Amino acid sequence: MRAIVISEPGGPDVLDWQEVPDPSPAAGQVVIDVTASAVNRADVLQRQGKYPPPRGASDILGLECSGVIAEIGAGVEGFSVGDQVCALLAGGGYAERVAVPWQQVMPIPDGLALDVAASLPEVACTVWSNVFMTARLRKGETLLVHGGSSGIGTLAIQLAKAFGSQVLVTAGSDEKVRRCLELGADEGVNYREEDFAEKFRNRADVILDIIGAKYLRQNLDALATGGRLVLIGMQGGTVGEIDLGKLMGKRASMSAAGLRVRPVDEKGVICRGVVENVWPLISAGAIRPVVHAEIPMSDAAQAHRMLEASEHIGKILLVR
Amino acid sequence: MRAIVISEPGGPDVLDWQEVPDPSPAAGQVVIDVTASAVNRADVLQRQGKYPPPRGASDILGLECSGVIAEIGAGVEGFSVGDQVCALLAGGGYAERVAVPWQQVMPIPDGLALDVAASLPEVACTVWSNVFMTARLRKGETLLVHGGSSGIGTLAIQLAKAFGSQVLVTAGSDEKVRRCLELGADEGVNYREEDFAEKFRNRADVILDIIGAKYLRQNLDALATGGRLVLIGMQGGTVGEIDLGKLMGKRASMSAAGLRVRPVDEKGVICRGVVENVWPLISAGAIRPVVHAEIPMSDAAQAHRMLEASEHIGKILLVR
Repeated sequence: MRAIVISEPGGPDVLDWQEVPDPSPAAGQVVIDVTASAVNRADVLQRQGKYPPPRGASDILGLECSGVIAEIGAGVEGFSVGDQVCALLAGGGYAERVAVPWQQVMPIPDGLALDVAASLPEVACTVWSNVFMTARLRKGETLLVHGGSSGIGTLAIQLAKAFGSQVLVTAGSDEKVRRCLELGADEGVNYREEDFAEKFRNRADVILDIIGAKYLRQNLDALATGGRLVLIGMQGGTVGEIDLGKLMGKRASMSAAGLRVRPVDEKGVICRGVVENVWPLISAGAIRPVVHAEIPMSDAAQAHRMLEASEHIGKILLVR
Repeated sequence: MRAIVISEPGGPDVLDWQEVPDPSPAAGQVVIDVTASAVNRADVLQRQGKYPPPRGASDILGLECSGVIAEIGAGVEGFSVGDQVCALLAGGGYAERVAVPWQQVMPIPDGLALDVAASLPEVACTVWSNVFMTARLRKGETLLVHGGSSGIGTLAIQLAKAFGSQVLVTAGSDEKVRRCLELGADEGVNYREEDFAEKFRNRADVILDIIGAKYLRQNLDALATGGRLVLIGMQGGTVGEIDLGKLMGKRASMSAAGLRVRPVDEKGVICRGVVENVWPLISAGAIRPVVHAEIPMSDAAQAHRMLEASEHIGKILLVR
């Protein structure tokens, strides 16, 4: 098969579409004939040599895909050759075929195009596991989403609204804020022009954060009493000062978790939660996946340039 | 009635046993004729003028008591005059009588002496709400308790063992560590001689911490994957540096909460949880309240000196 190979750590041009060995399904795995994959920030870090894949994972980029099941390993439950599926991957999505544990494979939401389904596994599993499973966002509570126009942001806004929450967002331009409001966000801040901690002080029951250290003080200011700060990215650094007195004054909590390194069984629990709770809302049209562009997979470099330029809204797909 | 009054902020000698007005029960409150109260670190801070009582609370010291119900206000459920009870207080325990919302009143565990019951409300509600409700310590998991020989520590050790956990402790002398092991702790560290982060690295599923900033780095080192750090005190300062990358690497969480400022209904939920889950273990003898000394309430100064000397094991009671 062909796949995107990283010739050496570096810029987008190191991504090369080449012939590589076909994967075969180990016990508990299926092999998917890939229709589409999608790009994530983690892919850029991995391309630059800053984020090695977890032990045992493919060294090919790509944390999600959609496609058709081509082969089935021993001990796989509930899937057949020919099924249209999408999957959460620990790697290997930028390829014609990928092997993945069956627990991380999900059906396509009814009525959704197969290629568009590749936009969902990372964002749906990230938002479901962090905002709903970990932080337990409840109806009537307020969610603050940083990077509201990102793939994760656009889904988080719609999912939280569908579950009856208020949604606050930050984004990097007035146009991005406008798009977030169109998706249902109640209020937005262009973080280049306004301090979100001022505007949202003491109001966020849950914060979904991708910035880390740089926003730590402001996030604590924005939290409401009993608030939960959930860190899923560290784009603003990892080491910072924290005022534990403020955390205690608000009876607040803070947690941090990536998706990629979790054990297969935990990913399986998350995927089942997504299929049960998120897919019906997509099938009903209450949530629309937001796709910014579809780029041929062989030109992954262009998709990475687009992601790094940060002018997109929603997900950037790689299609065969 | 008589009560301990703080003549002016300062050392133990500012505590004076004086005549003050009797409390009367507002709607939803009972008045307890106090048999015993107990001292807490927060009392020392309040005596020093560093920890004002929450709005609406008595300015008399004392966060817990046992005694007999003397009066009942309108709308109180489930209690009668003459009942022997203990209660979690927002203040007012160092007195002959105290008014308290009925939600914070608990029966005495079967078979326990009424005075000894005054040792329980703060420690039982703190350990139950933080270790079991918030951090959800599960059977087979490992709890690290700092200050294992304190009132909170001695109960946390026994309760976690009774629920099938491993228990690690820190304490300030070999003798204190030895007493923690007698109470059931599996391993202990004298923190004056050994680095607990070295000894317990990556092992604690839950940490119950009273130190705050000074232990933050070491606590993150001691946490296991999926670990939960629960802060209930800040004896080592409130502002510190945190490595969020380490938090994420371990998929860990951190929360901080006091008991005193919570709304009455939340305290009520905690008290009901304690009565259901902790009292039966005390009645069965699986958990023994650890009382270091009983001091006459009129001599609260002596009890404060004893607490500040930090040579006690368990709780120091104030008895009438």
